[in-house]
Amino acid sequence: MVLDDNVLDRIVEEIYRRLTQPEILLEASGRHCHLSSEAVAQLFGAGYQLTKVADLSQPGQFSCKERVRVIGPKGELTAVVVLGPERSETQVELSMTDALSIGVKAPVRLSGQLQDSPGVRIVGPKGELALSQGAIVAMRHIHVSEADAKWMKLEDGQRVSVLVPGTRPLTFHDVPLRVSANYATAMHIDYDEANACGFKKGMRARILPQRTSKTL
Amino acid sequence: MVLDDNVLDRIVEEIYRRLTQPEILLEASGRHCHLSSEAVAQLFGAGYQLTKVADLSQPGQFSCKERVRVIGPKGELTAVVVLGPERSETQVELSMTDALSIGVKAPVRLSGQLQDSPGVRIVGPKGELALSQGAIVAMRHIHVSEADAKWMKLEDGQRVSVLVPGTRPLTFHDVPLRVSANYATAMHIDYDEANACGFKKGMRARILPQRTSKTL
Repeated sequence: MVLDDNVLDRIVEEIYRRLTQPEILLEASGRHCHLSSEAVAQLFGAGYQLTKVADLSQPGQFSCKERVRVIGPKGELTAVVVLGPERSETQVELSMTDALSIGVKAPVRLSGQLQDSPGVRIVGPKGELALSQGAIVAMRHIHVSEADAKWMKLEDGQRVSVLVPGTRPLTFHDVPLRVSANYATAMHIDYDEANACGFKKGMRARILPQRTSKTL
Repeated sequence: MVLDDNVLDRIVEEIYRRLTQPEILLEASGRHCHLSSEAVAQLFGAGYQLTKVADLSQPGQFSCKERVRVIGPKGELTAVVVLGPERSETQVELSMTDALSIGVKAPVRLSGQLQDSPGVRIVGPKGELALSQGAIVAMRHIHVSEADAKWMKLEDGQRVSVLVPGTRPLTFHDVPLRVSANYATAMHIDYDEANACGFKKGMRARILPQRTSKTL
């Protein structure tokens, strides 16, 4: 059988359509922690309030001027950024490089999924605490606003491949989407991933739609 | 026009063929340096011979027991591995994370391409040297034996995409091939890339052939 020109045209058009999908903002997250109100009191003193320095891309989230030390069995990370607001559970997000450097076997997890993750010690200016769990390597993920999800035809929980053009081009596979009216559309990666793809601030990435037999 | 089942079958078969390409060994390279004979004399003393500890996957290449300090404007890396044998030019291969940590703007380059790369200081037990150039971030690449190149239909200098399955699956694009009778077939990535793809020792990766209109 010969593959005729019409079919070839259709395949080329479909590939072109996919490759020209709108791009989304790519952001690299450095190591940081989220603290519960109990943790804030323990580390910074009773009644202490976190001090906002800058808003993050996700509405309501902000970086703080406060810094803590994070200590594992083999080393420590100094001046780890605290993000606000306070959360119900304390969580430390490290890159794999960070985790290995302090001897912590942190699993790759979405934020908030802390079951069976290892603990670390956190030291602040007024006290310290030993977490029984909470150290994770943040799984790369995409925040999608409800409006964007609608026109991009994306669903909460869906996993997609994302092409990052640039000096070290690569495609991340199996990236979970989280859709919410409270989100601004942006993909988050850690600094191992950022360095692996030659990340520069302001870089954009393309969501490649899932390849289903329905599409072609 | 309807895309008939025979055409769909052919497309599926072609994709299947590509995805079931033979896999190659994936190896992660930590930070290391190659030293010229002048550099060995300067750092370890006149007439000093490097001490082999273990053979590497590439025939003739080996890791040494010797360690050096690598110093940049903002910090230093201790116990950096020396690889042998001696080379014509001294070269320090760092991950982007390493380079940033010592304040060196190392470009992403193939081994040996040192033009306009920044220098660093190297300190050994008997002396030190200030390189005028030689610090690079090793560009990921694939060594291919001539025999494998032949049956895999790969050419020296060709760039391919490589799928790395695993816990953090991704596809590296634009990966250059180097074919030689002296090589053992293996892909080399640095530790940023290793952490980004969930590297484990012994992991294998799939070379995805270039997509050309000839193939379909």
